[in-house]
Amino acid sequence: MTEISGTDDLHQPQGVIAEAQSLAAEAFGAEESKFLIGGSTVGNLALIMTVCRPGDKILVQRNCHKSVYHGIIMARAEPIFLVPAVDLATGVAAGVRREDVERALQTHPDAKAVFLTNPTYYGMGIDLAKMAATVHRHDIPLLIDEAHGAHFGFHPAFPRSAMQSGADAAVQSTHKMASAMTMSSMLHLQGGRIDRERLYRHLAMLQSSSPSYILMASLDLARRHLALEACEEWERLLPLLDKLRERTGKLEWLEWPQLSANCVYATFDPLKLFLHLRTGQTSGFALQELMERHGIFPELADDSHVLLAASAGTTHKDLEALARLLESLSPQVEAEAERILLHGVVSSHYLRKQAVPMHEAVDRPRETIPLEQATGRIVAEMVIPYPPGIPVLVPGERMDEEGLEMLAELRRGRTRFHGVQDDRLHTIQVLR
Amino acid sequence: MTEISGTDDLHQPQGVIAEAQSLAAEAFGAEESKFLIGGSTVGNLALIMTVCRPGDKILVQRNCHKSVYHGIIMARAEPIFLVPAVDLATGVAAGVRREDVERALQTHPDAKAVFLTNPTYYGMGIDLAKMAATVHRHDIPLLIDEAHGAHFGFHPAFPRSAMQSGADAAVQSTHKMASAMTMSSMLHLQGGRIDRERLYRHLAMLQSSSPSYILMASLDLARRHLALEACEEWERLLPLLDKLRERTGKLEWLEWPQLSANCVYATFDPLKLFLHLRTGQTSGFALQELMERHGIFPELADDSHVLLAASAGTTHKDLEALARLLESLSPQVEAEAERILLHGVVSSHYLRKQAVPMHEAVDRPRETIPLEQATGRIVAEMVIPYPPGIPVLVPGERMDEEGLEMLAELRRGRTRFHGVQDDRLHTIQVLR
Repeated sequence: MTEISGTDDLHQPQGVIAEAQSLAAEAFGAEESKFLIGGSTVGNLALIMTVCRPGDKILVQRNCHKSVYHGIIMARAEPIFLVPAVDLATGVAAGVRREDVERALQTHPDAKAVFLTNPTYYGMGIDLAKMAATVHRHDIPLLIDEAHGAHFGFHPAFPRSAMQSGADAAVQSTHKMASAMTMSSMLHLQGGRIDRERLYRHLAMLQSSSPSYILMASLDLARRHLALEACEEWERLLPLLDKLRERTGKLEWLEWPQLSANCVYATFDPLKLFLHLRTGQTSGFALQELMERHGIFPELADDSHVLLAASAGTTHKDLEALARLLESLSPQVEAEAERILLHGVVSSHYLRKQAVPMHEAVDRPRETIPLEQATGRIVAEMVIPYPPGIPVLVPGERMDEEGLEMLAELRRGRTRFHGVQDDRLHTIQVLR
Repeated sequence: MTEISGTDDLHQPQGVIAEAQSLAAEAFGAEESKFLIGGSTVGNLALIMTVCRPGDKILVQRNCHKSVYHGIIMARAEPIFLVPAVDLATGVAAGVRREDVERALQTHPDAKAVFLTNPTYYGMGIDLAKMAATVHRHDIPLLIDEAHGAHFGFHPAFPRSAMQSGADAAVQSTHKMASAMTMSSMLHLQGGRIDRERLYRHLAMLQSSSPSYILMASLDLARRHLALEACEEWERLLPLLDKLRERTGKLEWLEWPQLSANCVYATFDPLKLFLHLRTGQTSGFALQELMERHGIFPELADDSHVLLAASAGTTHKDLEALARLLESLSPQVEAEAERILLHGVVSSHYLRKQAVPMHEAVDRPRETIPLEQATGRIVAEMVIPYPPGIPVLVPGERMDEEGLEMLAELRRGRTRFHGVQDDRLHTIQVLR
């Protein structure tokens, strides 16, 4: 299907696409919803390029999706990084603290927007309503990468959505936690702080002039499923997930995250099954491999974690199989003080000054050198140790002694590096 | 389907996607082929952002696809426009003359690349091999938007493809003239004039981190269809198209383009059925409406043309229905000297100096004013009369008396305007 009489046009919707988007806005509690057929990627790119002109500042959390970094690069904006809190129980990055945002807003009153990721991939979230109030006191928009939260607000057990919390824009991967096809996403808008015409122009620039009708139709169907059918399915599922956690919680080598007054996250997505391994005998990677051999496909794994996502399509049999698999293992329980220490090192407010703006750094010629020779050099790629998934260096920042030592330490362990060409970080790309 | 063990990753292909792309390169005669799931749009954007750094010059034909303009804007490049020849028989823009490219290359020896569209939407093409030789004498890459030519080279009746002609890069909408799903395209590469690593980085920035496997699979199937099955289907189809043209060529009010030694295009796509109406009684728009009521959906229409595209899926019955419909009409034949005159006016080397670079113009605040008040103002949108589909003004150019008169003249006729918010051009957007 393509644009013929009656099938409307995503870039100038007046017919059936306008109607579908209108139904989505109603379902998701937005003033306006835009179907995205280039994934949340294109939503993030367009939002940032809309609120930032070259040289404009934007407050952004350090561990955001790479598309947010790319949006900042393409907008030639100046990022003011907010380092997220780290959940010490699991060692992964959570969200940004409100007081850090407030402080940054005081320091940079000329910032054009605040861009946060909520929830994280692992399902951890902040108090978004309070954050929105904080940001709005400075009268700039709060933009949320809600890629992992398309289901938020559709069941009382789920956290409230960005729209419900008062954010100005939210980008959702409707294909992740809801039933749309891969690469189908939505951008929800409310309020008057974002130039909508300018946003539409950027969406039209970044998305194909031949948008996929199949992906658009799947967005409409996903909306319908969320609005009319999913609640009942989750009602059946959620008690089963509780039982799973209860049953496997007895295993000493395994830990489930516990929402508590002390933890750094305010909300947790019950559909995210985040297994923390308290053992050195089996790594998360090995457990992932074992699960896959049993037809269970985790979202991701690192040395001491496995993350699975449940959905309205998850059955009792699926969870039974998972429980039995976990119960069949009995690795030795190990202390992890050392791991937490490393995570603490990474999570400290380690931020090096941008020697060269990101957008210039990615444009310059680069070379690949051994990590050991990188001191004093300006890096050309993003260096992201997993966990906790917070970039230690981004393009344009200068490697110093402290940074090199930290990376070498992480490399000695079982950390994998994302964003870099050499994921074991024997070599690194720097500006020539 | 998403990225799990065994399904590979479009952004770092090493498994099945690498294999599919390799088969495509083999089929299309490229050194390397990249699957695009953001349409030819993303291929054009990425190519331009790869070859141009901010301020770099690029030779580009004026009537290229809007994604080429957007690529130039995002790259902050300086466009050196090449005005295409106009086919006087039909009044539509064809391709760029080789001598114009040579002259521009002499004038701008620092240009980074030449970006041409071949074939046009209407199926007209230039001698690409000769053009490639001309461009390569200056040792810069020739980039081709071959959106409408995915089938080129797969049958002797079709023109040779950009890859066969020696171009450095070609972007094809595999979903247009071949059988892939809407929004699925390919980027073909050969030679060493383009920085491939830089290109990959831009493709990774501009495309979703969750690429659609269904679209990718459809690209693989389209490759297979072109390589193994389509030739036989075209063998059956092409004589039927000849018969259609012969039969309806007898109608005086209708004209089919004729490849001749005098015409401005060197090749013509036999799958494009380009009807030129030599009558004032029935407009192309009215004929399109009538066709649609009979289940025939043209590609596009303007006041005096209707364009249809045949494919390997077109049957004898389809063409019979079309022929009978055309034969059932008998509008009065009219001279069109006036129309050709207008087209001649538009096609003259009318190019106004860029008052403000395009990428700056799109960033500045704008206002909507009546067209009559626009003299001396800097336009904020692209003004493209159809036909011939050559932008008269692009963002950042200044409206002068001559331009205003031409637009007013076109507006009095039955010209429609693309690229502008008001398609009847009573108002226009200008910089504040």
